[in-house]
Amino acid sequence: MKLATYKDGSRDGQLVVVSRDMSTAHYATGIAGKLQQVLDDWGFLSPQLQDLYETLNNGKTRHAFPFDPALCMAPLPRAYQWADGSAYINHVELVRAARSSEVPESFYTDPLMYQGGSDDFLGPCDDVIVPKEEYGIDFEAEIAVITGDVPMTATPEQALDGIRLVMIANDVSLRNLIPAELAKGFGFFQSKPATAFSPVAVTLDELGDAWDQGRLHLTLQSIWNGRKVGMCEAGPEMTFHFGQLIAHICKTRNVRAGSIVGSGTVSNKGVPRADGKTDWPKGYSCIAEKRAIETILDGKPTTEFMKFGDTIKIEMKGKDGQSVFGAIDQKIAPLP
Amino acid sequence: MKLATYKDGSRDGQLVVVSRDMSTAHYATGIAGKLQQVLDDWGFLSPQLQDLYETLNNGKTRHAFPFDPALCMAPLPRAYQWADGSAYINHVELVRAARSSEVPESFYTDPLMYQGGSDDFLGPCDDVIVPKEEYGIDFEAEIAVITGDVPMTATPEQALDGIRLVMIANDVSLRNLIPAELAKGFGFFQSKPATAFSPVAVTLDELGDAWDQGRLHLTLQSIWNGRKVGMCEAGPEMTFHFGQLIAHICKTRNVRAGSIVGSGTVSNKGVPRADGKTDWPKGYSCIAEKRAIETILDGKPTTEFMKFGDTIKIEMKGKDGQSVFGAIDQKIAPLP
Repeated sequence: MKLATYKDGSRDGQLVVVSRDMSTAHYATGIAGKLQQVLDDWGFLSPQLQDLYETLNNGKTRHAFPFDPALCMAPLPRAYQWADGSAYINHVELVRAARSSEVPESFYTDPLMYQGGSDDFLGPCDDVIVPKEEYGIDFEAEIAVITGDVPMTATPEQALDGIRLVMIANDVSLRNLIPAELAKGFGFFQSKPATAFSPVAVTLDELGDAWDQGRLHLTLQSIWNGRKVGMCEAGPEMTFHFGQLIAHICKTRNVRAGSIVGSGTVSNKGVPRADGKTDWPKGYSCIAEKRAIETILDGKPTTEFMKFGDTIKIEMKGKDGQSVFGAIDQKIAPLP
Repeated sequence: MKLATYKDGSRDGQLVVVSRDMSTAHYATGIAGKLQQVLDDWGFLSPQLQDLYETLNNGKTRHAFPFDPALCMAPLPRAYQWADGSAYINHVELVRAARSSEVPESFYTDPLMYQGGSDDFLGPCDDVIVPKEEYGIDFEAEIAVITGDVPMTATPEQALDGIRLVMIANDVSLRNLIPAELAKGFGFFQSKPATAFSPVAVTLDELGDAWDQGRLHLTLQSIWNGRKVGMCEAGPEMTFHFGQLIAHICKTRNVRAGSIVGSGTVSNKGVPRADGKTDWPKGYSCIAEKRAIETILDGKPTTEFMKFGDTIKIEMKGKDGQSVFGAIDQKIAPLP
């Protein structure tokens, strides 16, 4: 099923069930008002939502209305956890190659992950408000899952069973704040403002064969100012699958229902050309990666970060060509 | 007023109002079931809780019951944000001096802060469950505040107005996991398991003169295995006050109601002796600091980290000698 959260002026919005083709929606009133409630009591509430979803898909509901992604908050407008991995090692390799730094061997076996702020997410069509353009505004197109409860020391296989819903994300990054922040040694903080999520979150059965053991084998599109800059394959090059990412958290703590875990920037390896150079035909899911490629090829980056007024659209289509999660479609804006 | 959350088998527990002397409590049923609700709607709900608090203090409530800290969850059993500063620079100086590393000049003007997990806090008397003793189990005695909404780019002075409640915390740390984790460059993650909070959270008026412009001028006691190891003054040596810590978060994002912000390990400078050596008469609020002092004095640490079965009690007394927040009183334990 597909679930979304409609804006209603409250902090957590109103849970709606969205039809498979995303043409119509129906309030989940009577079952649950908020998505967190459903995650807290998944076994009891999700079958009731599934029934409503089927009735909606069959056009049999009385109070369906046209679904409008612009009226959506993030599926979880605020969450108790947002832990973002860096599961596509190619992204790390590129960024490090651009500064002539090796990737430590351990990075191939031990996931990189940071804890993000989760008190104030952006809806899929909300403006990305940044106080200053010179912070170096970048998008990051990612996949994210929402979990149920997963106990401390769960294995990657056990953790896979804890995945309830899948979304896509724009993990906005402020690149020019990162070097000084990481130099302090405590990780990202001010460089990671509010993250945006797709209009709908979907259960695994919606993904069919495209979901395989914690990896999503579909193409993630990034469209910057109307230009398609990324068509990245999310499946085969995901070094750590979502079960591994969740198990990484579980090494020393319980993961509780409603935790959101991100994949990090989806990234594909370059392809060697006949002349010995490298092409990146899939493009990029964040500007930092494009700039890394430029630095590797030409010694310096030429693509600039985002400006106020820029737009970013992130979307993933199923094998049938239909949008799976709806589009993240945002504009960069200064403080009002 | 003083607020606590009683265990009732649910994820968020039941909000109770606790008398000033912490002898009695009263369910807040009819006003709010959960503390997060109150933080979401502070202006409307907190005066009602204040009325109940006054009636309780006057012994006029009909359904008061004896208050038992052992039945408490953390005041917010799960939260949308847990951002922990390192506001006592002396702690950073000691730890760095022990490894002959300088403290960068910027650390005196730009707070160190990490984003912690907030989906699964520990109650004040809950066991600290750690899978392996060899992770290097340490306590960290801290002060923490719970905020209302504070907008992006708020100044430290504006941020002070956003503080709703104060608590104390045990920010459990797994010291032997830290070096490898920080070397990865993304900050703490597995080295910071679930944090515990005091039985009650209190409003600023409860603190009287001891609360001064974002600093709490009281003594934080740490009692390890029944031995008083820390009697640290929390006020004068707090390099960054809570308004500055919150404003640090607000540089690039909104801070939303129910965010918890920590002070980092409370720490006091050593005192020079007549013979040129240094004493630390206030003791320590985490074992890592004791080990740093040993390393500075003797070239190597001799105090070991905590073992399964160890206990840690953290408490803060008011100028009247009464416990302000109740005691954090925990045992270290392996997985069941």
